[in-house]
Amino acid sequence: MQETIWPPEIHTIVQSREFLKLRDTMRNWSPSGIADLMGQLPAEERVIVFRLLPRKLAAEVFEYLPIEDQEQLLKTMAKEEVAVILNNMAPDDRTALLDELPARATQQMLALLSPAERTIAVSLLGYPDGSIGRLMTPDYVRVRPEWTVEQVTEHIRRHGRDSETLSLLYVIDDEGVLIDDIRIRKVLLAPPLTRIAELLDHRFVALKATDDQETAIGVFRNEDRYALPVTDSAGVLIGIVTIDDVLDVAEEEATEDIHKIGGTEALDEPYMDTPLHRMVKKRATWLSVLFLGEMLTATAMGYFEEEIRRAVVLALFVPLIISSGGNSGSQASTLVIRALALGEITLADWWRVARREFFSGLALGTILGLIGFLRIAVWSSFSDVYGAHWFPVGLTVGLALLGVVLWGALAGCTLPFVMSKLGFDPAASSAPFVATLVDVSGLVMYFTIAAVLLSGTLL
Amino acid sequence: MQETIWPPEIHTIVQSREFLKLRDTMRNWSPSGIADLMGQLPAEERVIVFRLLPRKLAAEVFEYLPIEDQEQLLKTMAKEEVAVILNNMAPDDRTALLDELPARATQQMLALLSPAERTIAVSLLGYPDGSIGRLMTPDYVRVRPEWTVEQVTEHIRRHGRDSETLSLLYVIDDEGVLIDDIRIRKVLLAPPLTRIAELLDHRFVALKATDDQETAIGVFRNEDRYALPVTDSAGVLIGIVTIDDVLDVAEEEATEDIHKIGGTEALDEPYMDTPLHRMVKKRATWLSVLFLGEMLTATAMGYFEEEIRRAVVLALFVPLIISSGGNSGSQASTLVIRALALGEITLADWWRVARREFFSGLALGTILGLIGFLRIAVWSSFSDVYGAHWFPVGLTVGLALLGVVLWGALAGCTLPFVMSKLGFDPAASSAPFVATLVDVSGLVMYFTIAAVLLSGTLL
Repeated sequence: MQETIWPPEIHTIVQSREFLKLRDTMRNWSPSGIADLMGQLPAEERVIVFRLLPRKLAAEVFEYLPIEDQEQLLKTMAKEEVAVILNNMAPDDRTALLDELPARATQQMLALLSPAERTIAVSLLGYPDGSIGRLMTPDYVRVRPEWTVEQVTEHIRRHGRDSETLSLLYVIDDEGVLIDDIRIRKVLLAPPLTRIAELLDHRFVALKATDDQETAIGVFRNEDRYALPVTDSAGVLIGIVTIDDVLDVAEEEATEDIHKIGGTEALDEPYMDTPLHRMVKKRATWLSVLFLGEMLTATAMGYFEEEIRRAVVLALFVPLIISSGGNSGSQASTLVIRALALGEITLADWWRVARREFFSGLALGTILGLIGFLRIAVWSSFSDVYGAHWFPVGLTVGLALLGVVLWGALAGCTLPFVMSKLGFDPAASSAPFVATLVDVSGLVMYFTIAAVLLSGTLL
Repeated sequence: MQETIWPPEIHTIVQSREFLKLRDTMRNWSPSGIADLMGQLPAEERVIVFRLLPRKLAAEVFEYLPIEDQEQLLKTMAKEEVAVILNNMAPDDRTALLDELPARATQQMLALLSPAERTIAVSLLGYPDGSIGRLMTPDYVRVRPEWTVEQVTEHIRRHGRDSETLSLLYVIDDEGVLIDDIRIRKVLLAPPLTRIAELLDHRFVALKATDDQETAIGVFRNEDRYALPVTDSAGVLIGIVTIDDVLDVAEEEATEDIHKIGGTEALDEPYMDTPLHRMVKKRATWLSVLFLGEMLTATAMGYFEEEIRRAVVLALFVPLIISSGGNSGSQASTLVIRALALGEITLADWWRVARREFFSGLALGTILGLIGFLRIAVWSSFSDVYGAHWFPVGLTVGLALLGVVLWGALAGCTLPFVMSKLGFDPAASSAPFVATLVDVSGLVMYFTIAAVLLSGTLL
């Protein structure tokens, strides 16, 4: 178990320049542990600590650092040091770093790579942002079907040192087309002279380099593999994707969706690390758009000003009614957004979803409508707050609630489908967005019902 | 690449009783592909297809089926068949199935297991729901530090057949205490007579069996491992957890949080598979609670009935103002809920978060307040809709917006901390919950500002 030394102590060691002691202390730590510690140190001490690490450990620690810290460290290093670090990084982590740097810096970094590593880096950078190609690593073991188990073992001993995963081998033909993947255990357990071709079952699942990273999450959930091969359109093996990168993607996608559902642009950075002005900008956009939409409520209510003047009691229930519609819509849209993201439903399922939401909305609307009516009935038997005409008022509120909750469920479940059809992220049909939509129409519904039911009495 | 035959064709084959053809067709499919197909068939055909599979393939396919389908298939099988399937399942998948069955059925199933498998199953079922213990599999390779590379290779050849992952070996001492984990590649690449002890670096990260599954997500994100060892409180190795199970946990946790943020209880099942009555029940609870809270808005507005009667124009802006507060609160609470879930912030950070939200809320409130004031000013220069006193009305609306948006941000960021402190899931401080809270206080704020600014003119 790794020994824990808390930052203040490290701080003291750094301050008192006991560098040898520090180096000894860190030698037995895991790279992720050292990266963790560096994250808690001020920038200058971070550089000192990093400089003390043996070269190989430094390269490992570097991969665990957040991209901003990587950038900052690169600036303090000599060219030769940068070259060592970059050439030793896992290609997928390096792609993520190069992608973040300004174009000029990326070019400089690429120039520092060995010809082989440069070819790898450039090809990975060629895939679109968010595509599976960007997650690929070209470090894996390729074998030929005609090789024997003995030859494969020897091949691994010579070439397997850098490969990200050795639990799977990939079998290719003369053209580089992927024929099968095979677990290394199957090879280890077979007699040495068995040919690989005899061990194959020709059952494998491959990802496409240009596909969206989100699709990889679903495939990994279905398949019991730690790594999946990636092919181009001709079926040629061009890399592998490992499940740890997909776990990161899954967490990021969920974070993005959650931010959008909350009615803000996705932050793309940890909450605390997002500069205040950038966070305000990301939130202000949506907040202003929603505000402009919500202005229609003032316009809508303006049309019914005369009704409100004559029956002020109607105004009292406005917040209750529109918020109920918004809440019902928020439930429906959130459930549908997540079901779409998980692939539980597809665009073709709209009709089935709408039918479910119709019955749910009807049931929920009836429940709230009844509670609303009863509240007015009970209150009126004790006090005079709702006047002599409490019965038609109660009926108006009850029916409006039924209508608005049902409408909220239908609008809420439909909006994610519409967004998706229009090419937007369904998660953008956030709770606040649906609420705004339902608010305006809910008001019109409420006052229209009131005009019918109260005409002759209050209106 | 696997051949695709669409269900209608399979349906025809099943209907025409061409069982041999079907068996031949499926022989080359992956277990997950067959499970996928079975999911699209009606229940009776699903049973027929499953019966046609060779015994070993059937056991593999079984693990990929959803638990409800597993239950249903078990009912159609003879005891001996059930025993074969259960004894061949991966212990973690089996735990998930046994856990879903009624207690009586679980007992019957346990009786069908071999003594060794029964011991494993009972011990896994002993860990609390949602703990890492439930994800464990006891199939992994344990080695001793004094063994040579040659001995380890021989040991794997003999005992490694069932182990979930062979990319890592676990080194234990006489008492079973975990000393280190070691990548198999390191062993394969070493000379045959090297002792394992020479290859160890004594750097490893282990999970605790009783810890929450959520903690495993964070650890796997930090460590570059496909599997992590699980120890008891004495450090004794009792199992391993593989990253594919953690990917499932991460997706489920995100789904739960998203559902709660949308203002509903987590469904715990795919949207389409949730029976309608259960979905209505899960949504009705929160919707009714929010409705009862929102009723306070009617009470609050009742206090200002006289003001509304005198200045109906005030009522027109009620939806605009309360929804802006709700949207701002929804943004803040969602960002904080996700940051807490990812471990980016902890309970101790409330003060830092609140300070950020204070400045964000101030900026956002100023923006919306200005837009609101300008809209009233511009409208008033063209029409007479806001009357002669448009200036104090505009000022009231603008200031109320500033106050309500700021208050929304502060309340929204605080509520998740409060929920967490009280022992609830922070995600329960949903967008609708925060909105309800802010609605009531926002109304009081708005009418109080109006009473001050409009006294002597409109009021």
